[in-house]
Amino acid sequence: MSEPQRAMKSGLRVVRTVSALREVVDAWRAEGGGVALVPTMGALHRGHLALVTHARERARHVVASLFVNPAQFGPSEDFARYPRDEAADAAQLKAASCDLLYAPEIAEIYPPGFSVTVDPGPLALPLDGRFRPGHFKGVATVVAKLLLQARPDLACFGEKDYQQLQIIRALTRDLDIPVEIEGVPIVREPDGLALSSRNVYLSPAERAVAPGLNRALAEAVNRVRAGADPRDAERDAAASLIAAGFSKVDYIEFCDAASLAPLARLGRPARILGAAWLGATRLIDNLAA
Amino acid sequence: MSEPQRAMKSGLRVVRTVSALREVVDAWRAEGGGVALVPTMGALHRGHLALVTHARERARHVVASLFVNPAQFGPSEDFARYPRDEAADAAQLKAASCDLLYAPEIAEIYPPGFSVTVDPGPLALPLDGRFRPGHFKGVATVVAKLLLQARPDLACFGEKDYQQLQIIRALTRDLDIPVEIEGVPIVREPDGLALSSRNVYLSPAERAVAPGLNRALAEAVNRVRAGADPRDAERDAAASLIAAGFSKVDYIEFCDAASLAPLARLGRPARILGAAWLGATRLIDNLAA
Repeated sequence: MSEPQRAMKSGLRVVRTVSALREVVDAWRAEGGGVALVPTMGALHRGHLALVTHARERARHVVASLFVNPAQFGPSEDFARYPRDEAADAAQLKAASCDLLYAPEIAEIYPPGFSVTVDPGPLALPLDGRFRPGHFKGVATVVAKLLLQARPDLACFGEKDYQQLQIIRALTRDLDIPVEIEGVPIVREPDGLALSSRNVYLSPAERAVAPGLNRALAEAVNRVRAGADPRDAERDAAASLIAAGFSKVDYIEFCDAASLAPLARLGRPARILGAAWLGATRLIDNLAA
Repeated sequence: MSEPQRAMKSGLRVVRTVSALREVVDAWRAEGGGVALVPTMGALHRGHLALVTHARERARHVVASLFVNPAQFGPSEDFARYPRDEAADAAQLKAASCDLLYAPEIAEIYPPGFSVTVDPGPLALPLDGRFRPGHFKGVATVVAKLLLQARPDLACFGEKDYQQLQIIRALTRDLDIPVEIEGVPIVREPDGLALSSRNVYLSPAERAVAPGLNRALAEAVNRVRAGADPRDAERDAAASLIAAGFSKVDYIEFCDAASLAPLARLGRPARILGAAWLGATRLIDNLAA
């Protein structure tokens, strides 16, 4: 079954080219009421649907994009096995009252000769940037492109990818892309695990351990609010994850909520971010501190 | 005399903020007929005015920007002494039927915390990129910003800065900035010297030697068209410049007119580019090959 037919099956309108996307969005703009973009890599879960719901509340027209962006995966990362099911994604988007799916092929985003990119600068250096070299350059470039292709009034991103969200805010501010960026709170399983398309990689045993990341972050926040030194709380949180069965901790760090600079103490808007491995699966999470 | 008064003296409307610029351009867009942007660093000469004339022929509304962009000057370059005379520039723009001057302060373009930039990629590596590290990153970033601030239908750039023009074409294509980029032919003095704001740096003796750059490029093109090897013609052109009184030659190179890759022979759209020094002044020039 070809892509357009699958799309028709869900009843959701699908476009695959920039020109078709702009034709729809330009017509919407003429109607007024605002246009919201929800960029995704597919493999949709309730976290993505919360973005669509948020977008729906703020704009008359909602477009979701589905593009598994090769530029943001490292050579040893999971680009090839990243979960893909456009038909299921389209059905979920339709049910969430999304108006349009923009699902371009790779060559529509990166045609031959593609060479100019966005450099996310210092916000991409700490945290995930230390462990995923080039990742945020890939993210910043594709998000700039999607925003300039769709030209929405607002775009919604999950706080789950908190460093990404801060980079996207900086990118639109610094490159003068005229769009409002809305961060939407993390959606969690009842046991606290942040929803992620990568949770499907977890074995039942790993899944049972996974909520420990959220608990460790919350415990560190409580300790620091009670007066502990952030560095001590970070170190103990990492140790508790290993004790709980995580295979490796990339980082647990308190930082300034906007600049992502390390924090010696709380007292201004702060965030704790963590990344840890369960076998071959890397989980991230974060909390307001 | 304050800036706005000077602007009023020329009779040309001046704005200094993104919001004021967008207010004017949005109103123009509602009127229809097209909006053209002519980005400049001021110190205007007939080359710039040819850009305004070109813009006038293609759009109903023309805005010129004047911003001496610190990010595109190297630490040992001439940012501090770059010629500045906004009142004279405004008078010339008014006489050329420009409708608006956008002359932002540095903090309007690079506010505190500015951190995301445009990476021009491989097009910025050869030619001037080898001799002016960071220059094209500064150019690409400010041009992306100016285009996204003004949101014109078309923007005009001189072929004098040929590598810059190719980078700007790639930047708008790769980042999906919706604008037509128009290259405008070099304007020359009667003796062939390409007009440049930096020509004012030349002593009378240097000025007499300066047209040699254009002549050396033209001679190299003639030789290669007659069958000479491009590398031989480049080497001989560089030697002839030193013999004529130039102090140093950065490069003389035949390259593909779009990719800027070195060319072993003509036969597809090609360009010869050169950069050479007369004392403390660096001149560049180029010709279709």
